This record gives sequence, C-alpha cells and structure tokens, in this order.
Amino acid sequence: MRKKNSWQEFQIIDLIRQRSGRLGVRDQIGIGDDTSAHCVDPRKLELITCDALVEGVHWESPWCDPESLGVKSAAVNLSDIAAMGGTPQRAFLVLALPAKTARPFIIRLIDGLVGELSRFGVRLAGGDTVLSPGPIMVSLTVQGTAAAGAVIRRTGARPGDLLLVTGELGTASAGLGLLRRPRLRIPVRDRVVQRWLRPLPRLREGNLLAQSGKVRAMIDLSDGLAGDTRRLTQASQTGACIFASQLPVSLEARMAARALKCNPLDLALCGGEDYELLFSCPSPHAPKLINKLRKRTGTICTVVGKILPQREGLYLTRPDGCRVDMPSGWEHGASEKRDFLP
Amino acid sequence: MRKKNSWQEFQIIDLIRQRSGRLGVRDQIGIGDDTSAHCVDPRKLELITCDALVEGVHWESPWCDPESLGVKSAAVNLSDIAAMGGTPQRAFLVLALPAKTARPFIIRLIDGLVGELSRFGVRLAGGDTVLSPGPIMVSLTVQGTAAAGAVIRRTGARPGDLLLVTGELGTASAGLGLLRRPRLRIPVRDRVVQRWLRPLPRLREGNLLAQSGKVRAMIDLSDGLAGDTRRLTQASQTGACIFASQLPVSLEARMAARALKCNPLDLALCGGEDYELLFSCPSPHAPKLINKLRKRTGTICTVVGKILPQREGLYLTRPDGCRVDMPSGWEHGASEKRDFLP
Repeated sequence: MRKKNSWQEFQIIDLIRQRSGRLGVRDQIGIGDDTSAHCVDPRKLELITCDALVEGVHWESPWCDPESLGVKSAAVNLSDIAAMGGTPQRAFLVLALPAKTARPFIIRLIDGLVGELSRFGVRLAGGDTVLSPGPIMVSLTVQGTAAAGAVIRRTGARPGDLLLVTGELGTASAGLGLLRRPRLRIPVRDRVVQRWLRPLPRLREGNLLAQSGKVRAMIDLSDGLAGDTRRLTQASQTGACIFASQLPVSLEARMAARALKCNPLDLALCGGEDYELLFSCPSPHAPKLINKLRKRTGTICTVVGKILPQREGLYLTRPDGCRVDMPSGWEHGASEKRDFLP
Repeated sequence: MRKKNSWQEFQIIDLIRQRSGRLGVRDQIGIGDDTSAHCVDPRKLELITCDALVEGVHWESPWCDPESLGVKSAAVNLSDIAAMGGTPQRAFLVLALPAKTARPFIIRLIDGLVGELSRFGVRLAGGDTVLSPGPIMVSLTVQGTAAAGAVIRRTGARPGDLLLVTGELGTASAGLGLLRRPRLRIPVRDRVVQRWLRPLPRLREGNLLAQSGKVRAMIDLSDGLAGDTRRLTQASQTGACIFASQLPVSLEARMAARALKCNPLDLALCGGEDYELLFSCPSPHAPKLINKLRKRTGTICTVVGKILPQREGLYLTRPDGCRVDMPSGWEHGASEKRDFLP
C-alpha cells in the first residue's frame, strides 16, 4: 500500500530539488536518484538514503506485526543502497511513537530492525525518538560506500540496451491484497504475504552488477515495474518497451491473484514494493550477467524489455502483440482497479 | 514545548542501545551522544545526527510559521554537530505531510530549511517525502566531519572542571510562553519569540572550543540546563553544582518572565530549547576561552557551575546560598508549574 498525496511525491521532490541549489564540488549525486553520493576520497564514494514508513499509509497495525515493520524499514532502505551497487554500513533511526505505545511493541520493532540490518553487516549507530500525537512513523537513514567508478545511476540507459529484473514481480502486492483480506485462506498465503512484510534487499546482486562494469542504469522497484521504468527512462532521457509476456510472475503470485480476482500481470506491472532491481545493459552482455547472478547468488534474472530512443516513447507489448501506453505507477488499490491486460 | 511520552525518551534510547549490539571497529561514538562518529581515515571522523520535529508535540501550526519550522529543523540538527565541535556538510530531509498541505506551505518550509542550512555551507542532498494521515513531521539527518583528535564528547568532564555556557539561558522558553499567549503584548515580544522559533546553532563557537584542546566535555542545551547537566555528568560519571545566581538571563527574558508570571531563573534552569553549548574545562583555562570566544565570535560565555566527584551528587546553589537538589529536566508546561527558586 502507499496512499498518495493530492500532491504527487515526485512534484514535491522536484520542488525541493529546484530550491535546494547546486551540488557541491564533492557531491556526485544529489536529490533524485536512489541515494545521494559524495566523494570521500578519489577512490571511494559515500552513499546516504532515507525512507520513512508511516502507519495508516505504508502499513496498518492489525496486519503488520512490529518485527516485520522493523525488518521492512531496514529492507527498503538497504534496497536503495543495493540499487546503486553500494555496500551499507550504518543506520540511523527516527522513531515517532504515540504515548500509549507498549514496551514489547518497541522491543519487537527494534529487534526486527536490528536483526535485518545485522544480516548485512549494518549497525544501528544513532537516531532520535519523539512522541507522535497520531500515527507511528519509522524513518531510517542508511549510510554506505561504493567504489568511485562502480556506482550505477538511473541516468545511463542507452537505446538498444535490454531491461532486466532480478527475482519475481507482483508477489509483494499480491501479499498486500491477502493481508487486507484475512479471511481469504489459500495454501500459499504465508509465503506470499512474507514477500510484502519482509522484502529481500538485493545487496549482493547489486554489488555484482556494479562490479561487472556492464550495467548502465539501475533502480529498485518500489512503485511497480511500470512506474519505475518511467523513472529510469526519464532520468536517462530514453523511451522503453516492456514485454508483458516475459514478466517473471511466480506460481504463488498467480494463485494469489486468482484468489484476489485480479490479473497477475497487472500486479507485476503496477503492484509496488517488490524491491527487486531493474537494470539496463547492452544486449550482448545480458546472458553472461544472468548466468553470473544465478551462479553467485541463486537469484534468477529476466529480460523484461528494451530501451528505445526517447522519441519512441514508453509502451507495453501485451501478450496478444498489441502495443499499449505504459500504465502509470502504482496507486493505492491499483491491484483491484487496474485492467490493462487481457 | 515537547510533550513527553509515558515512556521517557531516554528509556527508549537505552532500550535501543542495549539491543543494537556493539560498536564496529571504525565506530568511535554510537547511540547516546549528540552525534555518532566513525573514522573516515586516520585523521578524520564523520559525524551523523538526526532530529525530528512533530506538529502538536514540538510546535503548533497557529503560532509557528512554515519558514521558522524549516529554520528550526535545520538549527536543532546543526546544534548537535556544534556540540561535538564538528563542521556540517550535508542534510537529508524526510517530510511527512497531510494530503491537504498547500504548495506555498511546502515552499516556505523548504526555503526556511535550505536558507538556514546554506548559512553554514550545508547542502540539502536527499531525502524522502511521504503522506501523513495526521501531523506534519520534519525529520532531518545532518552529516558532517571533525578532526579525529578534536571531537568533544559528553564523557570527558573531571572533578574540578568549571561548567560554562555560551549565550543566554531561558529566552527560548520565555518565547514559547509568549507564542502560546498571542494577546500578551510586551515591547520585547518579537525578539524573545524569535529565539524559540529560530535558535542559533553555535557552530563557530563549537569549532573554536574543540580546536582549543582545553574543553573536556560538551553538550547542546535542548532540554534545559538542569536536565542537560544531568546528562553530561551521567555520561562523565561525575557530580556537579550549578550556581543559580550566575545564570546568564537577558533583560528581555526577565521582562518576558515577568509578563508570564514566572521566575526567570526557572526558565534558565528548566526551560528547554536554548540550543546553547554547555561545556566543561579545567578552571585555569576558562578565562582565556571566554576571551577567545568573545573576540572571535562576539558570543559571551559564562561560568555557571563546577564539576564535582560523583559521590557529591548533583545540586544547585540558590541565590540565597541554600543547596537544593537539581531539578529534573524540562517538561511540557514546566515554565508555569516549576518553582525551585525563591
């Protein structure tokens, strides 16, 4: 889930970017990529990213337990570091809690957060706790590093590149659909909802892709393949085409989609929070990258589209061969309302 | 203002510290000081700090304009960097806004924030914007650096040291009192409320104090002199005595206190958000430090107490010579309810 503002998020980000002035001499990347990046020394960049999860917007208490909230808060931030090809090091937590918050809730949240950070060698090194008169808010800042030449931005895609994704698409938003319908019991329920509750940050995959030197642009999928392809191509000033028939949708996601009475390809395209990596590379390098990732991390990687010149726009080739405009990004309730595909 | 949780903030911070594990090899300071600190190279430390301001807890919309909110959010974070003797470089903003938030409000907030950051050469380099179903929350992370040998912690105070503060005490909380009583018109109103709305981060002062090599412990005054002296002495495992008759309270703060029908020394001791620096140094060095600070920055500096052995505890010498226990830290409404001094 993620209810939207009447103001779209990107409009606010654009406004902030316009008013925050120029980058400094040592700043390589400012507002508008997965993380910021600045030079520490000629060979090393520091990456910093923040992401907040707000009760009633990003999750609802009845169906999101505190450990999962902690895990998810860590994972969505680590995913941004992964999308740059970096290595996370430290995290800083701002926790806004209502006065009535029980001690066990806080302990479970912190244990979930610290546990997930530790899995990737990241320490919780500071932060702030404040009272909230309303929702719980968990805001995390993660700091990491990357080799100076090996950071992958959103801006580098070139016409002719293939577009690939790690893992599977649509499972997380199917999980959200099931979480909202606690009475809908299907055999794969637990596995599907875990993909929404506890995303897998693709840090090793991001690292390997960055080190390969073959990947030209990368972004993590928080707002759905359609929306994030739009972001990547806007940043790279290109167009793109997505092949709907090639989207990697798991059997579990298909079963969940059937139970939810929606099209699994809609979930893959417009459902959000998969936190997989979407990247572009010159087509001759794709098979080798796919093999390398599978061998070294066990993660499958799928070609889902290709980069086109900007004038050709952004479109989707449906399984029946028809071209349609790319649907817009993920919106609250999208999985139930959208019907782009036959 | 700052309404407190039923859980005290420090209990939550202790809980987080206990559960977040040991510091890493390169981490010099973790949870529990004004900022974290880790080694970038043998000569340089990186400092990171976060502070959030929540509507209805840290401010109320009717009497806090969006520019001031932006300025204050920057200033309270810069003040933490100042308290370590560091130099801030970059800031990262997490903004949680209700759906109805008007564009001019956002612009004014960002302009206030960016303006205050720019005054100190700090760039807004990234962040996140999210929808809030309730209050506006402004959470800022500031990153900076310090020379490896010149960071000042809370832990270094030694019995016999003098305790000094920069600037004046109690003006900010007098300003808050006036903001809450819009009909209470006194001639100094504007100047007093500005000290609450737009604190002055003491970055140059913090830098000079750190470079002097004479300062043993330092903290910024966010929760009032009494509360923050307690924190500093707890961290240093010492006691302390504060001389109430020596507290630097401006004429304006005294006039405001009279209008608010409270004791100005109560405001100086238990009112919060002065964002001045409290530091300890061996007594022979105090006069030179006071002179240096006045000459180089124009900021006055006052001896307000001395560090004692831990067994002597924490107390206050009243203007009439009586010793009383140190009042506890700042609480919401403290300025109206407290009466420690004759």
